[in-house]
Amino acid sequence: MTGPTMEELSAEACSRLLATQGIGRLAVNAEHHPLVIPVNDAVDGTTIVIRTAPGTKLAAADHADVTFEVDEIDRRTRSGWCALVRGVAEEVGPGHRADLVARTEATGVQPWAPGGHGRWLRLIPTSVTGRRIVPGELPPAVDPRAYL
Amino acid sequence: MTGPTMEELSAEACSRLLATQGIGRLAVNAEHHPLVIPVNDAVDGTTIVIRTAPGTKLAAADHADVTFEVDEIDRRTRSGWCALVRGVAEEVGPGHRADLVARTEATGVQPWAPGGHGRWLRLIPTSVTGRRIVPGELPPAVDPRAYL
Repeated sequence: MTGPTMEELSAEACSRLLATQGIGRLAVNAEHHPLVIPVNDAVDGTTIVIRTAPGTKLAAADHADVTFEVDEIDRRTRSGWCALVRGVAEEVGPGHRADLVARTEATGVQPWAPGGHGRWLRLIPTSVTGRRIVPGELPPAVDPRAYL
Repeated sequence: MTGPTMEELSAEACSRLLATQGIGRLAVNAEHHPLVIPVNDAVDGTTIVIRTAPGTKLAAADHADVTFEVDEIDRRTRSGWCALVRGVAEEVGPGHRADLVARTEATGVQPWAPGGHGRWLRLIPTSVTGRRIVPGELPPAVDPRAYL
């Protein structure tokens, strides 16, 4: 029987995990606090494409240092992984090159929130870090030596 | 058949939901970014009690404006709720009144991360906001008028 262990995840492992969820949490500095909002996302190469509603948080994210957090948590086994992308975000709009707009929209990210007014945001990562808690192993229900 | 709807949650509803998870995400400003880390928590009255490992993020959280985000997301129905607590955090240590230390530790928050070195942090909320996406309703499988 062993206890849980914590391991750092490589940037490559984080990038693979990031692409599996389709939802994560964008953190931006606004109103004197680090505000955190769930947003829908997809990956375009190394860039994270996010859709979010217009407003204070989007305005604060545009051309700012932001982070994007994705995790998967198993409360039953008290384990899981998390990945944190640090980077700079930019809203994509009509002022951008048509091919950039096209490849951003081609990710097909659909906001869950109703209204259909989700703007497009590209987050260019400067670092990706993550870690995983691996649950401890319980002793086997049957002693395998019984079969030897 | 109706589409999904978004509703704002009252502070009371958020507080009730916050107490259901035992895990959330602490956001602090450090290293020029709003850093987000999953942490274990419990509620002590209106205060959120958090355990987290010592280090840069804890140092940045102590006596600082932080947020604490909790959500529950259902990817199948593309719905869920999120609550965001804004407030000020303070690390609890030997310099505090014994009764405050005692009631903090009495919450029994256990960090999932191995090592057992989780420090105690109290987050005093200044505001609590949240919202919920309610999935759309599908038409009933059987037309109820068939029974009239």
